[in-house]
Amino acid sequence: MIEGAVDAIRRVRGVRVLDVSSDPSHNRSVLTFAGDADAVKAAVLALFEVAIRTIDLRQHTGEHPRLGAVDVVPFVPIEGATLDDCATLARDVAHEVGRRFELPVFLYEDAASRPERRNLEDIRRGQFEGLAAKLTSAEWQPDAGPARPHPSAGATVIGARMPLIAFNINLATDRVEIAKKIAAAVRHSSGGFRFVKAMGLALSDRGMVQVSMNLTNYEQTPIFRVFEAVKREAERYGIAIVESEIVGLVPAAALVSTAQYFLQLDTFRPDQVLETRLRL
Amino acid sequence: MIEGAVDAIRRVRGVRVLDVSSDPSHNRSVLTFAGDADAVKAAVLALFEVAIRTIDLRQHTGEHPRLGAVDVVPFVPIEGATLDDCATLARDVAHEVGRRFELPVFLYEDAASRPERRNLEDIRRGQFEGLAAKLTSAEWQPDAGPARPHPSAGATVIGARMPLIAFNINLATDRVEIAKKIAAAVRHSSGGFRFVKAMGLALSDRGMVQVSMNLTNYEQTPIFRVFEAVKREAERYGIAIVESEIVGLVPAAALVSTAQYFLQLDTFRPDQVLETRLRL
Repeated sequence: MIEGAVDAIRRVRGVRVLDVSSDPSHNRSVLTFAGDADAVKAAVLALFEVAIRTIDLRQHTGEHPRLGAVDVVPFVPIEGATLDDCATLARDVAHEVGRRFELPVFLYEDAASRPERRNLEDIRRGQFEGLAAKLTSAEWQPDAGPARPHPSAGATVIGARMPLIAFNINLATDRVEIAKKIAAAVRHSSGGFRFVKAMGLALSDRGMVQVSMNLTNYEQTPIFRVFEAVKREAERYGIAIVESEIVGLVPAAALVSTAQYFLQLDTFRPDQVLETRLRL
Repeated sequence: MIEGAVDAIRRVRGVRVLDVSSDPSHNRSVLTFAGDADAVKAAVLALFEVAIRTIDLRQHTGEHPRLGAVDVVPFVPIEGATLDDCATLARDVAHEVGRRFELPVFLYEDAASRPERRNLEDIRRGQFEGLAAKLTSAEWQPDAGPARPHPSAGATVIGARMPLIAFNINLATDRVEIAKKIAAAVRHSSGGFRFVKAMGLALSDRGMVQVSMNLTNYEQTPIFRVFEAVKREAERYGIAIVESEIVGLVPAAALVSTAQYFLQLDTFRPDQVLETRLRL
């Protein structure tokens, strides 16, 4: 199925497929593609068409929770687009998908219609198998499409969010409890930065520990501030940072603002970046 | 004349004019434009055509030293092009200019044919007025074109170099001798970093002093290393950095490598930058 979906997306003019990854135990694939609003909308509709035609969730199992054949579509702003632009696009696509495919659609994160629907896990609770019951309740009427599951494709979740940065920091110690304490200090759920999720874990083969983080909004909780906070917490135990790593992709703006911070470039404007100027 | 030149360049498909600046006391304009090799070559030839038709150096005065109507053309690598690519392009354009416009051409910096011609100031010494005499000497035979000046347009200098970064650091003191000492410590000419030119000056109206620098190769002498060196030298006098500034444009790679350095991102690859991936 996934090859068919990728082909359908590639056929849309102005869309660039950046990544395709499939996980057999999850029985689930993640497609990443980019383009301007109209192109990305056309690609998403093409994806729904292929997925609904070829996936039957009544015959589907896998470790990862899911609500529909196309489980979740997050629109992410890059290159001058804003989170608001993405939320507008998400609502537009949601209504088109609901109408065209008779599929119930929930809007989430920054496109959510109410606070209880911001969180994907809350929407997905009960999964495909519990969908018919969920859609009978007053709180879970869909944001678009019919209030009954699509027989084979279930429902879908569409929304807008900032690009996520997977950022890990390795510490020069084998004491995992220190990584766990630092993770607790910087993550939102236990009093830390608003847009940080973090856990501490051992890298046993390397004799180090890691503070493993997701930064969910690098504009409001920037990478440099989180790095400096982790560094300071580690110092309190007499421990240095060995190295850090970004897993996967990172928006250029997150690195430009980091350079600006450390170089104290107070009056710097993003359009001073030569490559940005090339595309204005 | 400058409007005609800009128009001629803009008319070349695939060329983007990034900046035009004219200095009346210099009686001289600087044009910055970008494109792939073929497009930029066509634009440079169009520029020579307009400049030779409209500028007569026999009637020209200005404060800035100059050798020709088109005085100097540096090709600068951006977005995946290398310095070698630019040197190859410089030699190609030099021969075309020499042949088509019967103009003597000197190659400089990374396109230079011999070490004595790397430095623009050495080539330009004697200026337009001294050109006929200079071209009779064995050491100053041109790299392309005839060994006699063009009557109205003189000669030209074409070459390849890294993008230059104008980087200033302001210090929390009004003692200009400290800025001068730090400038001397970091600049190449007095024992500092190979690709740094620097001077110290007073910002009298702000009660601060400035280490004003040109970084002529940010790959080999990176901006973060120069910043840290200036910071350390200032500390030796008990003085802090107030702010720094980049004047004009900076290649994204110079800021990405700065973020990488301060965040200790040891295994980071440039293709992890989302915007870079979009253009691969």
